Amino acid sequence: MPLKSPRTTVKRLPKRGRYDAETVHAILDSAFICHVGFVAHGQPFVIPTGFGRDGDTLYIHGSAVSRTLKSLAEGIPMCLTVTILDGLVLARSGFHSSMNYRSVVVLGNAKPVAPEKKEHALVVISENILKGRWDEIRRPTRKELNGTTVLELPIEEASAKIRTGGPIDDEEDYAMPIWAGVVPLELKAGKPIPDERLPESIPVPSYVKRRR
Amino acid sequence: MPLKSPRTTVKRLPKRGRYDAETVHAILDSAFICHVGFVAHGQPFVIPTGFGRDGDTLYIHGSAVSRTLKSLAEGIPMCLTVTILDGLVLARSGFHSSMNYRSVVVLGNAKPVAPEKKEHALVVISENILKGRWDEIRRPTRKELNGTTVLELPIEEASAKIRTGGPIDDEEDYAMPIWAGVVPLELKAGKPIPDERLPESIPVPSYVKRRR
Repeated sequence: MPLKSPRTTVKRLPKRGRYDAETVHAILDSAFICHVGFVAHGQPFVIPTGFGRDGDTLYIHGSAVSRTLKSLAEGIPMCLTVTILDGLVLARSGFHSSMNYRSVVVLGNAKPVAPEKKEHALVVISENILKGRWDEIRRPTRKELNGTTVLELPIEEASAKIRTGGPIDDEEDYAMPIWAGVVPLELKAGKPIPDERLPESIPVPSYVKRRR
Repeated sequence: MPLKSPRTTVKRLPKRGRYDAETVHAILDSAFICHVGFVAHGQPFVIPTGFGRDGDTLYIHGSAVSRTLKSLAEGIPMCLTVTILDGLVLARSGFHSSMNYRSVVVLGNAKPVAPEKKEHALVVISENILKGRWDEIRRPTRKELNGTTVLELPIEEASAKIRTGGPIDDEEDYAMPIWAGVVPLELKAGKPIPDERLPESIPVPSYVKRRR
């Protein structure tokens, strides 16, 4: 499945660009927040939101009265970008300093998921955010489902961009007495904070502990 | 300085919206990556990049041949969004589950910084990414400065959106035997990895250790 198009071709540093579904999917599956871009009255907006992937489809959701969701539901052109920061790359010059990252850009047009697929899509999003949680929580009511808009975006036109490894300095800069290397970065989960009204008899679930 | 406009007014959950410069600046200063949105040939694009703030001005930079930077330098409408994830909010239902976050959306038009301000802007970006680094690294050459585009975006039309605290469940759901609370999230720095060609005599700098 080639996801490359003229619009998704990485022009700067083309060696960092990847267009195979396996790479794109793997990056998407390593994140649970994306930034969605769309245009309203000629002005671009970029809004963060959770997401989930099922095969070649991305799901996002929000309140049925959300401006963002309403705009996107009309099928206007959108961009969904996922960025995972892996580290600061400290070179001996600012010019060659960089970051290690994995990112994906998906272009396309979203549409509302069919009512009978809505709960499935919500499961996909929930499980992508915290695997194991859905089985434990209360099911959505009819009213909640009606108050939630879920959109699907096909992964048909996309690109991944990846940088890994240490700094690459100008040859003459290696002799400078400057520390150089990578500072790894990772979004880490801390100690869970129980809700004030949670009975002490209810332990932290294993899927929450695993998230650490 | 009121940063609120009809376009930046938070409509969904308006209590989460903030428009004072102090709040907007504090969130911007807690991040070093933003997502920039712009439109090319009717298609929105969302691209991650580093940034820095100096007073009421945001700086971003990139290669002089970058499509993104070239487009933005023309002064087309753009959106710069910063998102800091603070935690997963696990409610007893999916509907009330959420995330804790601090985000800022800045709308406006960028322009290239004057040549004599370019190095200052690069210092601002570098120091925002890793405070203390700039003083140690090699200064940019004339050729490097010419090969780098730096843009400034005024913080004139913006909004912040913040969610904090635990889940807020439907009253009847509190009796369910489901763990609920917050899983804190934080982008953490790991153990620095020295460059392969770094002499062992050069120690990890204090500003890198502090970043942990």
